[in-house]
Amino acid sequence: MAKKPNKLKARLPRGFVDRSASDIRATDEMMTKIRDVYERYGFDPVEMPMFEYTDCLGKFLPDTDRPNAGVFSVQDDDEQWMSLRYDLTAPLARHVSENINEIQMPYRTYRAGYVFRNEKPGPGRFRQFMQFDADSIGAPGPQADAEMCMMMADAIEALGIPRGQYVIRVNNRKVLDGVMEAVGLGGDENADRRLTVLRAIDKLDKFGVDGVKLLLGEGRWEGGAPEKGDFTNGAGLNEEQIDKVLFFVGITNYSESAEALGDLIASSENGQAGITELNTIGSLVASAGYTEDRIKIDPSVVRGLEYYTGAVYEAELLFDVTNEKGEKVQFGSVGGGGRYDGLIKRFTGRDVPATGFSIGVSRLMTALKNLDKLGTDDVVSPVLVTVMDGDTESLGRYQKMVQDLRNAGIRAEMYQGNWKKFGNQLKYADRRNCPIAIIQGSDEREAGEIQIKDLIEGARLASESTDVDNITWRESRPAQITIQEADLLDSVRTLLAQHAEDRRREAEGA
Amino acid sequence: MAKKPNKLKARLPRGFVDRSASDIRATDEMMTKIRDVYERYGFDPVEMPMFEYTDCLGKFLPDTDRPNAGVFSVQDDDEQWMSLRYDLTAPLARHVSENINEIQMPYRTYRAGYVFRNEKPGPGRFRQFMQFDADSIGAPGPQADAEMCMMMADAIEALGIPRGQYVIRVNNRKVLDGVMEAVGLGGDENADRRLTVLRAIDKLDKFGVDGVKLLLGEGRWEGGAPEKGDFTNGAGLNEEQIDKVLFFVGITNYSESAEALGDLIASSENGQAGITELNTIGSLVASAGYTEDRIKIDPSVVRGLEYYTGAVYEAELLFDVTNEKGEKVQFGSVGGGGRYDGLIKRFTGRDVPATGFSIGVSRLMTALKNLDKLGTDDVVSPVLVTVMDGDTESLGRYQKMVQDLRNAGIRAEMYQGNWKKFGNQLKYADRRNCPIAIIQGSDEREAGEIQIKDLIEGARLASESTDVDNITWRESRPAQITIQEADLLDSVRTLLAQHAEDRRREAEGA
Repeated sequence: MAKKPNKLKARLPRGFVDRSASDIRATDEMMTKIRDVYERYGFDPVEMPMFEYTDCLGKFLPDTDRPNAGVFSVQDDDEQWMSLRYDLTAPLARHVSENINEIQMPYRTYRAGYVFRNEKPGPGRFRQFMQFDADSIGAPGPQADAEMCMMMADAIEALGIPRGQYVIRVNNRKVLDGVMEAVGLGGDENADRRLTVLRAIDKLDKFGVDGVKLLLGEGRWEGGAPEKGDFTNGAGLNEEQIDKVLFFVGITNYSESAEALGDLIASSENGQAGITELNTIGSLVASAGYTEDRIKIDPSVVRGLEYYTGAVYEAELLFDVTNEKGEKVQFGSVGGGGRYDGLIKRFTGRDVPATGFSIGVSRLMTALKNLDKLGTDDVVSPVLVTVMDGDTESLGRYQKMVQDLRNAGIRAEMYQGNWKKFGNQLKYADRRNCPIAIIQGSDEREAGEIQIKDLIEGARLASESTDVDNITWRESRPAQITIQEADLLDSVRTLLAQHAEDRRREAEGA
Repeated sequence: MAKKPNKLKARLPRGFVDRSASDIRATDEMMTKIRDVYERYGFDPVEMPMFEYTDCLGKFLPDTDRPNAGVFSVQDDDEQWMSLRYDLTAPLARHVSENINEIQMPYRTYRAGYVFRNEKPGPGRFRQFMQFDADSIGAPGPQADAEMCMMMADAIEALGIPRGQYVIRVNNRKVLDGVMEAVGLGGDENADRRLTVLRAIDKLDKFGVDGVKLLLGEGRWEGGAPEKGDFTNGAGLNEEQIDKVLFFVGITNYSESAEALGDLIASSENGQAGITELNTIGSLVASAGYTEDRIKIDPSVVRGLEYYTGAVYEAELLFDVTNEKGEKVQFGSVGGGGRYDGLIKRFTGRDVPATGFSIGVSRLMTALKNLDKLGTDDVVSPVLVTVMDGDTESLGRYQKMVQDLRNAGIRAEMYQGNWKKFGNQLKYADRRNCPIAIIQGSDEREAGEIQIKDLIEGARLASESTDVDNITWRESRPAQITIQEADLLDSVRTLLAQHAEDRRREAEGA
């Protein structure tokens, strides 16, 4: 086919998606449930714009050496670089720092919003996605971290994910620092190597113990062999050091291993402080009734970000899903966070302790879809008033019917396409899942009557020949009835109520 | 004061704002009310990402000659330019065009979201702001335009703006085209001059009849005189032409002027078609009970955008506000739209008729603030459990109290700041408007008791010396009571219920 050369090609930019009605409604429902939990915890909403000055994002960037890598940046008229936010933590730190004299501390807020990553898009990896964060600023004690963990647990349960199918895992960076000191990686001069160790540990899920061993030692070939990919330099630890690190991250029962861990980091003041904090968190959540099946101390949690200074925590879903390779794997993390006491100081010069976490909204949505816990779309499609005659007077009459239905709180619409092919109108009603079609041609009008077509019953009757036991608890209704004009509202109401009752019984019976 | 040279300055990018809790809650409440109306009309949500390829925005841009002026653009890895959306219409047109074979027409959707303008920010002029749009795609008839006008009227009333304080004004670009033909500005060769006339008319509110006369004729000096500013070139019409245009836009009573208007554009087929459409819209909204005080045909409405092809409509608020110069002026437009039958054809080559409008969310918020119709913030601040002792065991006990309150659905928090200065905790409760503070020191704990401080009653008692008649309908309550530990939930519930009753009575009595 020859196309006109000047016709524009409509296309989504790579790595971005349009969202459908059911996705939007399900997300809204999910976010409302999460928000209700945060509100009950006494958190208030606050929101920052999409842009920040690039220098304000600094430390939060994935690659601090290349400030433009990973983010979308534009230069303003006055030559200053601005970037679309990469997460919701950096804008909050800027907001708090800028308004530090007006803000009442502790400042406990939540915010949901889109963040942007200027990265190569891939399957399930988007360049715009939504995060839902909560943070306590000016909250120095481990009790604030404990609260975060409980709030994550409550939010997950509010979404219908039962106990036993999730766990909040908690660790502390100071304990990790203690282990680093124990293997001789303390001090500023070893900061880079510590980061390498951190990133290696973070790969435990992905590469297993053997892979992490390589990353802690000499390094690792992608895919496990030279011919398969690039080489990642290791942290250069010797066997004894590697064993100590692996002992730490391999701890599965914290209380059983507490003594050995204590011995390992006995010489590290920082490590000892971390253990005390961890124990306090464990004790506080236990006091409030959060047992180990909900919030668990787990030294293998490290979190990839450099800026955490104390507690780190992660919400994991424990049920199995099938991955793209067809393997059963645990669903895994849907969010996490930690204490970042140093970030606001960058702006203010003052110590402002802070702790908070982020939930990946679409990842959590995927989890809920897997668990069938997504709010089944209970929005009923509109009643369709069909158009039999297109003259202004008739249209006015149909319009009045629609408006009467709407004023009675009933979702309704008049067919707005080309009315001349009536079949198209019913096809539209069918595709749109309209429950009822209202029909009034000139004959009915003269008689002061209206036809009401029960499209749901119609579909049921049509399918009954093949599926007799489909619904057995009631007799079938007529699929079309003739009513008096004055009875329109009552008849529609009655029919919609019957549909609602049908849905209720079907849901119960299912 | 000497500042450390390496301290970062926390600052919002120019033209952007942070949003407070009360603003977010009020906006959410307003948007929910609008959304309920759109849903009742049978519209479904749909959402597009913030970025589009710049070429897809084309015709929608303010200045089609300079595609980067006015928008924020970045170049992708593959050299394609992407821009942050400038409005919500262009992304919708792209979405529909890209999925035209899957979408069931008529496609009636709504969407709210941020749009971006890369313009010089000014007072009240932001570079990121929210729009709330609704559109019917594949809806060719004036009945779809009529529906849009009714939906705008219903949305405004749903926000509590009473009849008489708003009006939806409707015009039709085809009628305007007829007037253009009548003054000899028909044909492709006059497209630029027609646009100049259009823009001149659009300035009627701003410059008055005399100013518009200049813009239709030779041109106009900014501020009215050469020394005050720049010269804007006029459309170059002669006096007779100007009179005809001004007669048209000066029509205040459409039915009275109908005959004269008919004569004026008798020779224009397009103009005649426009009048028929306008009359149909008028007749349809009247049939559905929307009288002229709600939806009014008004030939002075032109709308600034070039792409409208039929009906144009605008929602105006009629009450007076004081502008920055201290003058009383009508609040004016809060949104509008029109028919844009040509936009989707740019992508698809097919005729896809469409009509829709946009509401400026923050402008509407300002209006509601002026009318005192903003949802008074009825979110009750959290109950504060204070911290008297900071040891882990005590913290665990406070934490349990908080968690018990939350589990009972009561908004509550434990003080998360430095607990050692108790005065700071009460100051925090005061600034945060906490209704109740829970206090348990070691004495109370030993006795199995808890102190409950009624902070609202406390504030009332404190203010009573100066304002005796403040609340006369009841006796004062004690501002602090001692209860048994086991009675915590009941006591807090009772007190919160009393506060709610106080608020109800005060609102009634006010």
